[in-house]
Order: sequence, then structure tokens, then C-alpha cells
Amino acid sequence: MKLKVLWPGKTRNVEIRNLQDYYLRRINQIESCELIETKDAKGLSEKDGERIKEIEAKGLEKHFKDDYIICLFHRGKEMSSEEFARFLERTSVGSARAVTFVVGGFLGLAERVLDRADTRLSLSKMTFSHELSRIMVLEQIYRSLSITSGKQYAK
Amino acid sequence: MKLKVLWPGKTRNVEIRNLQDYYLRRINQIESCELIETKDAKGLSEKDGERIKEIEAKGLEKHFKDDYIICLFHRGKEMSSEEFARFLERTSVGSARAVTFVVGGFLGLAERVLDRADTRLSLSKMTFSHELSRIMVLEQIYRSLSITSGKQYAK
Repeated sequence: MKLKVLWPGKTRNVEIRNLQDYYLRRINQIESCELIETKDAKGLSEKDGERIKEIEAKGLEKHFKDDYIICLFHRGKEMSSEEFARFLERTSVGSARAVTFVVGGFLGLAERVLDRADTRLSLSKMTFSHELSRIMVLEQIYRSLSITSGKQYAK
Repeated sequence: MKLKVLWPGKTRNVEIRNLQDYYLRRINQIESCELIETKDAKGLSEKDGERIKEIEAKGLEKHFKDDYIICLFHRGKEMSSEEFARFLERTSVGSARAVTFVVGGFLGLAERVLDRADTRLSLSKMTFSHELSRIMVLEQIYRSLSITSGKQYAK
């Protein structure tokens, strides 16, 4: 199993970044998981939204290779944690392809990144900030690995 | 509008606690919101689950008064953040009753606490640790207040 997590730019909120590092450490105790913080668009305002998403898309795509791509998307598929764990196991175990999670920036992901996704995953009907979504997906990856490896983890 | 958040015991994970304090500060810049960490059950193991939930229920109930109680519950109602914001506005604005959010401990909430709830709310089909759920509900309260007060906040 080869896991990667991609998102544009470093997490700015220091409390969120510390929690992100905590979950990455926990995940890496079970499976190796590489976080790549790709190029983000600097010095552009929100009205340049399409340009921002285009710049971020290019940075993300460099790391896609032939990976199995899971994009976080608010209208994506919702799963229970059990279903997600089985799905991740089915997709990754014994596969040479990396499974790569992609979390968008402030404005979300460019259309063509979403088109490239093998699976679009929604974490909730609610909207969470893109930085908090990073935490939520890491927690679900950790929970998944705990479930499938038979490790005890918080309910 | 009077907001309260209740849960049994202090948040143990230091990274989560720091993030919790961050969101509480943000919320309190818009509306006053009191966090009460109620009595938790110490020195009992998971096989005493019902006793734990009973002890925690007693600690929580002391603060219920005639409040409008919203319990987090995995089979509760799912809403979008927009719906949640309108719901919270409808429920709280102009009401003398406090709106009180209740997040269970490791084992969730006792049946009778759930029975007392005016609304049972689910944050996601996925299961998140009870400590991370604390963060998620605080972020949604902050997002809600930002939406209804017309304040700009992260998408």
C-alpha cells in the first residue's frame, strides 16, 4: 500500500498544522503516507479564481502519475467510515499504484482535476474550511488503517 | 442569543485542545459562547460502558435547565452548513432560552440524554473521534454565525 496526500500550499493555521502533523505521525506508524504540499497561487485575489485553480491544478497534476486519485469534493460520494475503510483496502492492498488523496485550496479544485479523479469523496453534507478538511481526511485515513489492521482506535 | 457547549471531561489531545480554544475565541468575537466541560467518569473501563454514560449524563444534565438542547448523534439529522445556519438563527434569535450543544464522550451519550434532545444532529456519515467532533461542531457554529452575521469566512 502506497499512500499520498496532496494539497496546494502549506497549512497556515498553526493549530491546524500541529494537528495535521499529529495525524500524519499516527498514520505513518501503520502505513507510510507522504504529504506533498504543492505550489499555491500567491498574490492573486478571489476574483482571479479560475487562474488560482489553474495554477494549483498544475502543481497537483505533477504528482498524479498513474495513481488512483481520490478528490475531496462536496458533491462527491458519502461513505460511512466502515465503508471507506473497506474501499481503501480494496483499492490499495496488493496494488502497485499509489492511492492519492487530493484536497483543494480555498476555492476548491479545478474542473479538470475533478475529471481526473477515480473517486470523488464527500466528508459531510456540511462545508468545512479547506484546512479543517485536511484534518478530517487524515483522521479518516488513520481510522481506516486502524480498522483494517485490527488496531484499537477511538470510536 | 445565548450559546453553550457541553461535553464530559477536558479534551486530552493537546493539539485538538489548542484548536478548540482557537475556534472558541473566534466564536466569542461574534457571540458569547460558554464551554462547560462536565464531570467525566474516571477509573472505569469500557466494559462499564453504561455506568460511564450514566455518570456523564448526570454531569451534563445539571446544565440543561430549560435550554434548547442539540445533541450530536451519528444517526441524527444531517444538514448543509447553510441549513444549519438558518436553523440556528431560527432557534436562537430573540429566544430567552439558551441553545446548548452536547457532544458525548468516548462512548457517546446515554439514551435519556438523547431523549431529552430537541434536535439530534449528525455532522457526517463518517465517524470521527469524539474529540475531533468537538472541533467540527465549533467550526460549524463559527461558520453559522459568520453566515448569519454577513461576516466573510473561509469556504
